[in-house]
Amino acid sequence: MPRRQLYTFTKNKSRIREYRESGDLMFEKRLRKLRNLGDEQGINGFFLASEPNMRYFTGFSALAIERLASIVIPVNAKEPVLIVPKLEEEKAVNLSFFKNIRSYTDAENPAKLLGEVLNELKLTKGTLGIESFLPFKFYKMLKEAAPSLKVKEASDVFQKLRSIKSTEEINLMKRAAKIVIKGIKAGIETAKAGTSELSIAFEIERKIKESGGESIPFCIVLSGKNSALPHGNTSKRKIRRGDSVVMDIGATFKGYHADVTRTVFVGEASQKQRKVYAIVLRAQKSAVKFVKPQVKACEVDETARKIITSAGYGKFFTHRTGHGLGLEVHEEPYISQTNETVLEPGTTFTVEPGIYLPNKFGVRIEDDIAVTEKGRTVLSKLPKNLLIV
Amino acid sequence: MPRRQLYTFTKNKSRIREYRESGDLMFEKRLRKLRNLGDEQGINGFFLASEPNMRYFTGFSALAIERLASIVIPVNAKEPVLIVPKLEEEKAVNLSFFKNIRSYTDAENPAKLLGEVLNELKLTKGTLGIESFLPFKFYKMLKEAAPSLKVKEASDVFQKLRSIKSTEEINLMKRAAKIVIKGIKAGIETAKAGTSELSIAFEIERKIKESGGESIPFCIVLSGKNSALPHGNTSKRKIRRGDSVVMDIGATFKGYHADVTRTVFVGEASQKQRKVYAIVLRAQKSAVKFVKPQVKACEVDETARKIITSAGYGKFFTHRTGHGLGLEVHEEPYISQTNETVLEPGTTFTVEPGIYLPNKFGVRIEDDIAVTEKGRTVLSKLPKNLLIV
Repeated sequence: MPRRQLYTFTKNKSRIREYRESGDLMFEKRLRKLRNLGDEQGINGFFLASEPNMRYFTGFSALAIERLASIVIPVNAKEPVLIVPKLEEEKAVNLSFFKNIRSYTDAENPAKLLGEVLNELKLTKGTLGIESFLPFKFYKMLKEAAPSLKVKEASDVFQKLRSIKSTEEINLMKRAAKIVIKGIKAGIETAKAGTSELSIAFEIERKIKESGGESIPFCIVLSGKNSALPHGNTSKRKIRRGDSVVMDIGATFKGYHADVTRTVFVGEASQKQRKVYAIVLRAQKSAVKFVKPQVKACEVDETARKIITSAGYGKFFTHRTGHGLGLEVHEEPYISQTNETVLEPGTTFTVEPGIYLPNKFGVRIEDDIAVTEKGRTVLSKLPKNLLIV
Repeated sequence: MPRRQLYTFTKNKSRIREYRESGDLMFEKRLRKLRNLGDEQGINGFFLASEPNMRYFTGFSALAIERLASIVIPVNAKEPVLIVPKLEEEKAVNLSFFKNIRSYTDAENPAKLLGEVLNELKLTKGTLGIESFLPFKFYKMLKEAAPSLKVKEASDVFQKLRSIKSTEEINLMKRAAKIVIKGIKAGIETAKAGTSELSIAFEIERKIKESGGESIPFCIVLSGKNSALPHGNTSKRKIRRGDSVVMDIGATFKGYHADVTRTVFVGEASQKQRKVYAIVLRAQKSAVKFVKPQVKACEVDETARKIITSAGYGKFFTHRTGHGLGLEVHEEPYISQTNETVLEPGTTFTVEPGIYLPNKFGVRIEDDIAVTEKGRTVLSKLPKNLLIV
């Protein structure tokens, strides 16, 4: 494959137009909120180079690997700037909400351009908020461009902003969830004795792509003993009668993720399987029902964990109850035993308890949830009662 | 999907054992070479946290995202250290060539442990070589752990080392190429009028997974007008008689990449298509044949480019002739017009010229090449004469 910059936005022009028309106000709001948060924290500006953050604030993103692509956002009223390699310029002009776009050729030093931009924005002194994962290479460019500038890790600021989704974002996540659900339904139809895990996964992927899924970051099908591995790999193993089949599927729509898991049984389900399924289902439903504004992330985890633990399976529930979901498949807030984050309307995350009995079988049930003003909405609408296929 | 650390090594224990037995000598050699290169450059030690580099030097890797996983290699004779989160420790002990493994729990500060390790290795002063893409978060830990330590971007050192492959590595790349070729053959069998690009891609993926491919980083099938986009996306477009079909497929085996492209025509090929194919084929074969030790990367590019340009299609060959290949799908050396790197035995890269006629069709032919003592070996053995299917 020839090397490329990976564009993350749809290339369909009419879709872009439609998105941009409804989107400008959305981008303005995001910018305003970021500026307010910066102001509160004594930050004079932001320097961002990660794909999800560039996309979130401008609608455009390029994977900054070989060449610097970044945005500089002053906290004062000055216009923010998008810096891109020359060969990205045309696409940036078409897609970016930021109108001040500056580019450099391969013969030019991006640190010099960055210095000019920081100078124009009066950001050569003071404090610049950066991402925790900013590559050292770009950090060095920043220090070269403005040696007396202080930098501060500000990932909490972006994460806080991005963790509260707008109605538009939640609608995109619902679309993503619908696509994943079509995939899982195709998987359920395929799951019978004699079929391999891989074949089921292929049918799921096919359906997702046919249904407009933009990307499929993972498509995990685990059966029988394999289903007892929460992080197992889809294999050639053939399904047998009596197996549990865990399907954990992720896909994106316009950058936004859905992440849904269902577990079904093939031909029959033993008493033990029925019992374990019922416990996981109760834990999952109770945790979902517990979600509302002002509840803490750790309390959602506790709700699920308590049910599994008091049924005697606590040590077989080996992971967190869930994770935030949005432009990234794992983001804030993590639904863990220690996260004291208070949930607010617009927060979106997974609820996915599981029980894994080593060398026997596993069960996991996962839905995507959005916190609403009064409670919660389940974004992934797919039945979850015990299903024998 | 519950959050996980992504293990990049095979989980099959017998394979690991077999690999480790033949591998210790290999890891010793790599360590010795790295130390020599560090010594030459006045570097006292190395601090590495990227997946390919950890894997290259220890056989173990964890994706360092939330938690620090890294290696510290003193250039003097002291034993190198692997630092991992507690929950990775058991796997690290099983897989790592480094025997000095230190771990920290979630309640402990990894910067403190890093400070202890640097102190034991007498690396709190002097210069530490780091990766260009080290996340700022980990760079800050390093500064906290040893404030008077200087850091130096040393990615050129690792890239230089990794760009020269051992016989074992080249054998793994041959295995990867065999797997990709099986996939492409399956794709060729599927490519007929009425079939969609996506369906062909699914058959290719299925074959690769069935043949032991570890991962499929990309599987691009472009037909008709779409094939004129060097970076197009596989779509639902149905193949028509007279289409060119470009299949650009990547897969890994034990971490090592193959990346092969073939272009076929469906039902018939026009005079224009035949002409363009013949030019690309001549350019590709000539560039491959030109490869030998002491030749420069840019001269390989020139060999292909000259043929395409003098045939009048220069402006339709819009990318570099190739890229290095190994633990990463794009690595040093880039086969570009400006790269003066001298090729040495053991260097592996792609040779993939193409011609893209906008809104008409495109042709690309790509093989994986290893430089040998006297010339070159083609790792991807698949016929490339004009094929009408």
